[in-house]
Parts: sequence; structure tokens; C-alpha cells
Amino acid sequence: MAMVCLSDFEAYAKKYLPKIAWDYFAAGADDCTTRDENILAYKRIRFRPRMLRDVSVMDIRTKILGTEISFPVGIAPTGFHQLAWPDGEKSTARAARAMNTCYIASTYSTCTLEEICAAAPGGLRWFQLYIHRNRAASQQLVQRAEGLGFQALVLTADLPYTGKRRDDVRNGFRLPPHMKVKNLEQAFEVCKMSLLDPSVTWNDIHWLRSLTRLPIIIKGILTREDAELAVRYGVQGIIVSNHGGRQLDEGPATIDALVEVVEAVRGRVEVYVDGGIRKGSDVLKALALGAKCVFIGRPALWGLAYKGEEGLQDVLRILQDEFRLSMALAGCARVSEIGQHLVQFSKL
Amino acid sequence: MAMVCLSDFEAYAKKYLPKIAWDYFAAGADDCTTRDENILAYKRIRFRPRMLRDVSVMDIRTKILGTEISFPVGIAPTGFHQLAWPDGEKSTARAARAMNTCYIASTYSTCTLEEICAAAPGGLRWFQLYIHRNRAASQQLVQRAEGLGFQALVLTADLPYTGKRRDDVRNGFRLPPHMKVKNLEQAFEVCKMSLLDPSVTWNDIHWLRSLTRLPIIIKGILTREDAELAVRYGVQGIIVSNHGGRQLDEGPATIDALVEVVEAVRGRVEVYVDGGIRKGSDVLKALALGAKCVFIGRPALWGLAYKGEEGLQDVLRILQDEFRLSMALAGCARVSEIGQHLVQFSKL
Amino acid sequence: MAMVCLSDFEAYAKKYLPKIAWDYFAAGADDCTTRDENILAYKRIRFRPRMLRDVSVMDIRTKILGTEISFPVGIAPTGFHQLAWPDGEKSTARAARAMNTCYIASTYSTCTLEEICAAAPGGLRWFQLYIHRNRAASQQLVQRAEGLGFQALVLTADLPYTGKRRDDVRNGFRLPPHMKVKNLEQAFEVCKMSLLDPSVTWNDIHWLRSLTRLPIIIKGILTREDAELAVRYGVQGIIVSNHGGRQLDEGPATIDALVEVVEAVRGRVEVYVDGGIRKGSDVLKALALGAKCVFIGRPALWGLAYKGEEGLQDVLRILQDEFRLSMALAGCARVSEIGQHLVQFSKL
Amino acid sequence: MAMVCLSDFEAYAKKYLPKIAWDYFAAGADDCTTRDENILAYKRIRFRPRMLRDVSVMDIRTKILGTEISFPVGIAPTGFHQLAWPDGEKSTARAARAMNTCYIASTYSTCTLEEICAAAPGGLRWFQLYIHRNRAASQQLVQRAEGLGFQALVLTADLPYTGKRRDDVRNGFRLPPHMKVKNLEQAFEVCKMSLLDPSVTWNDIHWLRSLTRLPIIIKGILTREDAELAVRYGVQGIIVSNHGGRQLDEGPATIDALVEVVEAVRGRVEVYVDGGIRKGSDVLKALALGAKCVFIGRPALWGLAYKGEEGLQDVLRILQDEFRLSMALAGCARVSEIGQHLVQFSKL
Repeated sequence: MAMVCLSDFEAYAKKYLPKIAWDYFAAGADDCTTRDENILAYKRIRFRPRMLRDVSVMDIRTKILGTEISFPVGIAPTGFHQLAWPDGEKSTARAARAMNTCYIASTYSTCTLEEICAAAPGGLRWFQLYIHRNRAASQQLVQRAEGLGFQALVLTADLPYTGKRRDDVRNGFRLPPHMKVKNLEQAFEVCKMSLLDPSVTWNDIHWLRSLTRLPIIIKGILTREDAELAVRYGVQGIIVSNHGGRQLDEGPATIDALVEVVEAVRGRVEVYVDGGIRKGSDVLKALALGAKCVFIGRPALWGLAYKGEEGLQDVLRILQDEFRLSMALAGCARVSEIGQHLVQFSKL
Repeated sequence: MAMVCLSDFEAYAKKYLPKIAWDYFAAGADDCTTRDENILAYKRIRFRPRMLRDVSVMDIRTKILGTEISFPVGIAPTGFHQLAWPDGEKSTARAARAMNTCYIASTYSTCTLEEICAAAPGGLRWFQLYIHRNRAASQQLVQRAEGLGFQALVLTADLPYTGKRRDDVRNGFRLPPHMKVKNLEQAFEVCKMSLLDPSVTWNDIHWLRSLTRLPIIIKGILTREDAELAVRYGVQGIIVSNHGGRQLDEGPATIDALVEVVEAVRGRVEVYVDGGIRKGSDVLKALALGAKCVFIGRPALWGLAYKGEEGLQDVLRILQDEFRLSMALAGCARVSEIGQHLVQFSKL
Repeated sequence: MAMVCLSDFEAYAKKYLPKIAWDYFAAGADDCTTRDENILAYKRIRFRPRMLRDVSVMDIRTKILGTEISFPVGIAPTGFHQLAWPDGEKSTARAARAMNTCYIASTYSTCTLEEICAAAPGGLRWFQLYIHRNRAASQQLVQRAEGLGFQALVLTADLPYTGKRRDDVRNGFRLPPHMKVKNLEQAFEVCKMSLLDPSVTWNDIHWLRSLTRLPIIIKGILTREDAELAVRYGVQGIIVSNHGGRQLDEGPATIDALVEVVEAVRGRVEVYVDGGIRKGSDVLKALALGAKCVFIGRPALWGLAYKGEEGLQDVLRILQDEFRLSMALAGCARVSEIGQHLVQFSKL
Repeated sequence: MAMVCLSDFEAYAKKYLPKIAWDYFAAGADDCTTRDENILAYKRIRFRPRMLRDVSVMDIRTKILGTEISFPVGIAPTGFHQLAWPDGEKSTARAARAMNTCYIASTYSTCTLEEICAAAPGGLRWFQLYIHRNRAASQQLVQRAEGLGFQALVLTADLPYTGKRRDDVRNGFRLPPHMKVKNLEQAFEVCKMSLLDPSVTWNDIHWLRSLTRLPIIIKGILTREDAELAVRYGVQGIIVSNHGGRQLDEGPATIDALVEVVEAVRGRVEVYVDGGIRKGSDVLKALALGAKCVFIGRPALWGLAYKGEEGLQDVLRILQDEFRLSMALAGCARVSEIGQHLVQFSKL
């Protein structure tokens, strides 16, 4: 079976992963409407491609928070990579470094931050965190990440409680005994997320800021109102995200919310987006609508499931090739030439 | 089979109820367009969830007509509960009381009002009625209900004649011989509803008012014009309803009509809605659009069909948990924080 | 099998008619888009039903060109009724008279006008005609119809050539040898319609007017421009029609075109509509949008195919009952109460 | 099997062509969204047909760049006709001449330009070209075409690189060894198109102009901005095209882009369109929206696959008959009567 596009990796993962793992990765909240809308919303955006522009020399590099990456696609934070591949997040880290892009490691990794860093020294990595009821635990994690060279903190804002993912409930999902959420000392019921603090508010950004010199990026913003607050509270970046449709079902598709957020932010901080990216041209659309970079979640897991770090590199390379090609066919030779003039929303 | 969401109860009921009973409960008028639209219309509404608001202490209680209920979901009036479960409306009453919510008992119950009240003393109950050709019969019912402690009258306005439900015609639907519409003395052909008075007009609200001190709620309003009339004729509440799509097919979905009715009413009376509620987030949408409370019809019957009062409690508990979770994920800790800013209508 | 709604008759006809006859009746031009749109367009119209109006005494009678009919549904002109039932148009005439409504007999009948009239003396009938290259033949037909007591002429305007109905081409459709287009003396190739005159223009209305004192109704108008011309050229009525989707594919659905035509006509002549009527509530929608009466084509043929005149009466009676019920459920007791306030176009 | 409409030829070709050839012809880029949209977009356009206009004498001829053709449908440039029929482009040329219409021969023909011309002397032909890295090769081709009597040059602008057609990648598509891209001397990897120059810009139109006295038509324009540039750089015609959906997926359907281009061009040069034409009425729609002529790609290949030049003539004859009939049914007797008043965009 030739691996030609990301759906090929999806089909592979669906076929070869244990059902409980596939279901966990695939899960959306409730009816999975938002999970699927993330993809469908891209299809409602049409390109307005321009012709006869010199695209003989293509430059698809970009910078996020000042650091250059090989193309505007990073790895979104997702949990439990060992469910996809024995080496887990170590493979993810290696693939991201090999492709010279950014990997956002999740708090819910099945490898420690130290293992991740040791696996791919020098790679560009950000650390995703929740704020726990036990603030000392959060503080410790932040300082550990900073000490290990992670270059930004990504605070997930959309999980005061875990969304209702029906298949996980049916399957009674829990990690197999030999896997652990190694970054957190205490054993605890992962699916209940009982350590997370649902009383977190914007003021906690100030607290987080007091702990670290790292830039703070907030993940899970979907409205102009919250985007405005994020800027006001001093974050360095926003990831427009609905947690892959795993939290509140029937919120907006992220590419639709991106437009609203970008408009509100007016360039004051960088805006990124995740959710629904399946083709290089989706990346082009997101950039045309104002994203500085996109992050992929499930496709990265499919790549891992296929062949570990090699499989993830395959996924990234396909996206890279497709992105470069779609840029060229739309008439852009450099990322800086991408703009809103390239797209329009379909009336349908 | 785990009962995770309301569709699980639907599947169970479809599988285990006698076809004639399932068909009767499931029936919509004509092509069932409105029945199905009630559900689809919810899917066209998108949340605008807000992040980082303290949702550690959730309070989902509300009041209807001044009485507190544990969450804004009551039981809509539906007929013939013994078709779903041997104890019929007695089980419904018990489940509603156990969950501390409101049960609107139907005139077409297979238990008497007295049996219903005896089964769950002290429960919050409203009584649904039609106006019969024989006004004395209606008067007697009203006074009986008032005497038994029902706390409001719900006048159904959308059934001057019974809608055409094709499957019921094909099945020649009628109650099995051992069941009776016990609240009405005379035996009569239920499906012809020949005792109902199609000459009823708004002036009959005055007549009804003269019989009782109970608040009067009108059920079946779908337009701003009728909402305005309802207020003018002095009702205390409006249930936006299309009778579960069982009367005039191709009228509006109730959640769409709700917007128009709420706008017309301008807070002068409470507005409720039924039809199409299948998830806790549907409740949140209805409240965001101005409903004070929603009522569930078919899902309650599925719960009964599953395990009587226990099954109905399961259904209510699932809705309650889902409602609480969706509120939290949308950034609301109290019902009073829910507002129109939480939703937008999808362009699709 | 209970015959509960018109689709039941359709299913019967599809099952029991010879394929070539079914295909001929069912055929639409090209991709059958317009044929199907005629039906779908009704589904995009939503009622705004009004409650608590006295609907105890229902009066569904109306008048067309001054003559009373029992309800606003007549029989549209369709050809070759013997393909559906041995007695052909004689049965159609009897059923229409029995139901006290109007039957528009087609030039392409398999019974003569004389046979039709003899079968149901005193019935309300209009005569549908094309203008032939041989004008004397047309003149003779007109005068024959007038002499036989037909009360109006219906000139079909949308068939300068026959539309391309793929199945008829594949089947090599032609009348079986024992059937004849009896109203036309010469034998000729029916499907080529080679006798029809594609040079007919609005001026021929004057010519037709000069032949007869009968009112002239023009059938096949779909635009405001042509509606304006029809009024200017002195017709007494307009049938908004796209020939059941059998002529130009991808023109408008008739119920959509009705709105435009009614607006242009401003009450100066009566406007009717055919195409896509499948339920009594469709009739209500058409009247709400300004039609004085609707005409049914294929459903009448399904009725004939089921049981001849009896089957057609069944079809008409079902439509009548459904129309009366939908009027009552929408809050109208008389046809004169039906108006545009009853409907709105769905945004979908 | 009767060949009644173009889909019949499609079905035949799909059944009888080798899979690799069918896949190559059918291929769209990525998800094939644009390929399919080309067809769907036509279905969203509705006719506003006019009645009672004299359509007894139909004249469907038109002129492109001053030369009369029998009807406004030509053959779009597509590659590798020998994959469809042994005689390849020679058959195409013969069929086009027989039907008195224009054939745009592709650079990627499997016959030489000389063979094509010898097969059908005197036929109206344009030559499609890319600009190669080796400009001398391009110059030679242009001058060869001019010398052979081709009457225009069609410069394809939308292929700086080849689009990603997944099936071709999976199939490892390449020409069978006995076929050659005969117009180009060197053997090369067809699918990599490595000889094409992605640095081409609008200034190269001047260079091309300097080589030849032939009119230059630019193919692949989809936006008003590029249409304006095309006029400014002095082309004689524009073909609105998205390469049959084979280049940038999720660009606009060509019939939608046509409206924008026609508006920008304001009659200064002729505008044509290809992509999605499947019925005569599609041609009528394109002309109503301002195209001077349409070109067919895949349907021509299906015709070849069916029966070589005879099959292609069948395809053209069907389109011709359908176009004539739809014109007549819409009320137009001459191409000059076709205008925007004939169509409207569906709200759906």
C-alpha cells in the first residue's frame, strides 16, 4: 500500500491500532460534530489562484516566536504516544527535529520530559500544560520544562473538565498498566483528570508569568472576546483550537474561528491553529486567513502508528510537499506572499 | 450495552418495544419533516464558548413559575405511558420527583391523576389538557387536577384535529384492550379524538381562567403573532412546541420558532420549548436562546421503555450531567450566566 | 397494502405498470433535476401555523374562472391515459366529476373529446391544446371542444419541441399499436411531435382568441416577463408549469416561479400551478403563495393505474382530506383565509 | 447499450479502458473537489426560459477569433489520446473537422503536429503549449505550429508544476513504451514535467508574441486580477480553466470563475471556458454567462474510447442536438439572443 496522502495513514492506523487506542485518538465529544466540522470547514474555503508568477524558487520556511522552522506545520500536543508506537514521544521528538519543526509536548506524555529531550537534543520544543489543583505541581513542571530547554509554555484553556467522548466511556478507556503519565508523580485516574483545576481564570496567567521567563501561549481560544483578553493578559501567542472536537461539541470549526480571532488580535501576537489539517492546501488556507503556523494532532499519531518516527516524518514530508506545491500553484513563492486575497468562503 | 447517551435508549426502545407502540411514539405527521427538523435545527446552532472562567462550583438549578427544579429539563406531556412500561405514568411521576424536576401529566394518561399523585406525593406536576366539546368534562378535569395539587395547567393549542401519522393509520393504532384513557369517563376512539373541540379560540382562555386559580400555560405556539396574543390573553407561560412534529408537518423546528417567540414576549411571561432535545448541549442552546426550561417527550418514553422509573432517571441524569458539562465547557457556572452571546446560527 | 398517501400510489404504479409506461410517465428531461426540484422546493417552504382559531366548520371550496370546485385541486393535462388504465381518459373524466373538480383534457388523449364528454356529462372540463403547423387542424379542435362544452382552452406554451427524456429514447417509446391519439386524424409519430409549430409567438394568442369565445389559459409560464406578456395579450389565466420537468431541465421549480409570476400579475388574471404536489399541505403552500388552484399530473396517473376512476378518486380524496387537515392545523377555516403570512422560505 | 447522453460514454470508457488510462483521464488533484465542483456548479444555475418566441429556424453557429464553427463547443487540449484510441489525435482531428469545430491540439499529443494536420487537412486547429526551460524548444514548436496552419496559440498558465493526482501516484502512471510524446524530441519523464519552466511570468507573453503572428490565448485564468493582466499583456483570448481540477484542488468551479472574468474583461477579448460541460444546456449556461465558446476535455476522450473519431463525433453531435434543443426551449433561435437574463444562480 502506497502512502500517498494523510488518509492513507489514517486507514493504516484504523486497521492496525488496537480498537481502544484508535477510538481514543479518534474520539470527538458527543456527536463528533465539531471534530468533523474542523475538516469540512476547510472544504468550504475556495482558493483564488494567481497565474504566471515566478515560482521557480520556493521558500516555505517561516518563523514562530522568532525561531525558524522548515515549513509552517508543527506537532500539536496530544497524549499517550506509546499507544501509537512503543517509543512514544521519543519518536515524535526525533521526527520533529529531523524535519526541523516544532513539537509541543503534552503533559500527558508517556515519556518524561527528560526522556523526550534526551531523544532529540536541540530540537525546537514547546511544553503544553494544564494548571493543577496542586499549584506546586504545576510550578515544578513549568520550571522543569524551562530547565530542559523547552522554548515556550502552551497553556490549554479548554479543559476545565474532560469532554464526553462516548466511545471512551463505552470502552472504559484507561492506559494499559505498563504505560504511565510519567510527568506527574502521583498515579491517578487519567480519564477523570481529577487533578485539573476548574477554577482557573485569566488571572492565573499572571501567576504563570511569575514562574517563568518563557513565552506563554494560550491554546483553546475560539472567540474574539477571549482573543482580546488573551492579548490584554499578555500572552505571546494564541492557538485557535477546539481540542480536536474533543471538548465542547458543536462549537465552531477552528478555521472559521481563526478568522474572528485574527481580526481581534490585529497582529499584536502570533496566532496559530490546529484541527482538521489533512492536506498541504489546508495549511495554505490557514496561513491565508492569518495563521502564522498550524499544528497537526491526529495525523501525527497516524504517522507514529505507521512506522514511529519514520512514519511521522513521512506524514510531515507529504504535508510539506503538498504545501509547497499548493503555494506554487496559487502563485506564491514565499510564505510572505500568502494573504487573504488567495481565498474566499464558498457560498455553499 | 452501556447506556451512554440518549440514542442508546432510543435504540433499546426501538428494539424491544412492540412495533405498534414504537411506531406510535416515533410517529411524525406526513413526511416527518418537522419531527426530524426539530433535531437538525439544533445542529445548525454553534456555540461560542468562553475560556478561563471559574467553573469549579457549578449550579444548574433554575426556577419555573417560581418553583425550583434541579436543572432546566422537565417531562413533556405524552400519552399512554403504559405502552412503554407496565406502571405507566406512575413510574414517570416517581422518576421526575426523584430527579427533582417537573412532570407535565397528559390528559391521555393510562393512569388516573389520582394514581399519578399517589405514586409520588409532593412531586412538582403540571396538568396538560385539551378543551373538550363537553365543557363540563373539561371543567371537572381542571378542578380535579387543581384539587390534587397540580401546580399549573398546560393547554395544548395545536390539536384541533389529530395530525396524519401514516404509520398509525397503516397499523390501525389503538390502545390494547387492557389499557384505558382513565382520566376520561367515557370510552371513546382515542385516535379520532372526537371529543376535542375544534372551535376553541383565544376567548376560551378566559373561560379556563374562570375555572381555576392555577397558572395557565399555553403549549403549541410557533409564531410571534400568537405569542403576542398569548401574553395579551393573560397566560403565565408559553411552551414553544410543534407537538413533536406530529401535527402540521413542515412547520418550523421549535428551536427556530423559539427565537421569534422570545423576541415577541420580551420577558413578560416564561417561555419553554420542547422537541428535538437529545443532548445536554441542546438544553444549553435552548436556554441561550431564551427558554427558561425545556421539556423532553420521546426520550422520556425511551427511558421508561428501558427500565421504568429507573430508566427515566438514567435519561434525566445523563441529560443533567451533559448539561452541566456543556455549561462548564462554555464557561458558565450558573444558569443566570447563560445568554445569547453563547450561540450563533451556522451559515449552513 | 393500505393506500395512505400519494407515495403509496406511486409505489403501486411503479410496481405494476409496464416499464415502458412507467418510464414515460415518470420521465423528466435530461438529468431530471427540475422534475425532482418541483418536489424538493416545496420542502424548503415552512408554515407559520396559527393557533386557537375556530376551525370547527371547514370550507375548502373555491372557484376557478367563476366555477365552483370542491377543493383547489384539478387534473393537469397528461397524455395517453390508456397506458395507465384501459378506459383511459373516460375514467379520468368520471373521477373528476365525482369529486366535483376540473379536468384538463389533453390533446394527446387516447380517447376522443366526444368519448370523454359522454363518459361524464356535465363535468367541469378544460381542453389543452398545442398549435399545429396545420392551423386548420387546431381550429377544428378548438371549435370541437367549444361545441362539446369544454369551458376553457389551455394553450401549452413550453413545447416548441419535445424535451429530451433519456429513458424514452432508450426504450424507443411509442404508443402500443392498439392505442391512438384519437383527437388528431392523421397517424403520426407521437414522440417527434412533428405536427407542432415551433414558430408560434404571442401574436398567435390573438388568432386563437378569434376562433372561440372560451377563456384562454396559458400553460408553461415561468418568468415575470412572460407573465406580463400573457396579461397584456389578454389571457384569462396562467398555469405556472415546467411540464413536470419534461422540457427544459434546470429551469425553476414551479412553486418558486409561482412567487415571481403572482407578483407580476398583481391579481389581473388567475394564476394556477402544477408540478410537485404530493401532499395536501403542498396545496396549502401553493395557495398561500398566490395560486388560485393547483393541478396534479403524475399522481392522477398513479391513481388511474391503481384502480381506474376509483383509484383516481382515492388520490383526490386523500389530497382533499390532507388539504382540509393542514388548513385547520394552520388555523384557516376557509380558503379565503389562506395568505402569504402562513409561509416562509427556509434559509436552507 | 444506446448512447443517449455523455454519461453513457463515460460509463463505457470506465468499463473498457485499462484502469491506468481511465484513472489518468479521470484524475483530479488531491480530493478531486474542484474536478467535481466543475460539474456541480452548473447544477446550481437555473434557467429563466422564455416562451412563445419563434424558434422554428434555429441557428447555432458562432465565431471564435473570427472563424465560424458549427456550434460553440470545441475540443480542449488533453494529452495522450492514444491511451483512448489507437489512432490518437489523428482521430480527434478528423472528428473535429467533420463536425466543423475547433480542436486545440496538446503539446502532449501522442501524434506529431504534422500527423495531426495530415489526418484532417483544412480543419480549424489551435496549438496548446507550455513554455519549456529550453526556450529554443518552445520557439521551435511555436513556429512549427504556425507553419502547419494552426490558427492560434493556447498558452497554459496553470501548470508551473504538475498537480498531485493521487491515483496516478499510486498507479505509477507513465506512458506505455510504444507511445511517445512525439512533439518533444527528447524522451523524458512525462509525469515530472521536468522540462517545464516554473519561472514563467506575464513578461513571457511578450517573448511569445515576438515569435509569431498567431493570436495568443491564455488558458487557466480564474480571477479578475489575472483577467485584467491578460488583457493588459495583449492576449487575444482567455480560457477560464482549472485544468479539469487536476492542478490546484479547491479552486473555483470554472463556471463560477467565468462570471468574474467576463465582468473584468468587459468584452475586450473573447472569453472561453472548459471543465464540467456534460450537457447541451451547460453550454447554454456558459454562453448566457458570457463565454463565446466552451471546450470539452474528458467527454472527448470518452468519445474516442468508444469508437475513435466516430465516437467523438457522436459525443459532439449529442451536445449539438442538446444545445440546439435547450436554446429553443429557453426561447432563443440564434446564439446572439443568448444573454444573462436566461439564468439565475440558485440560492441553494
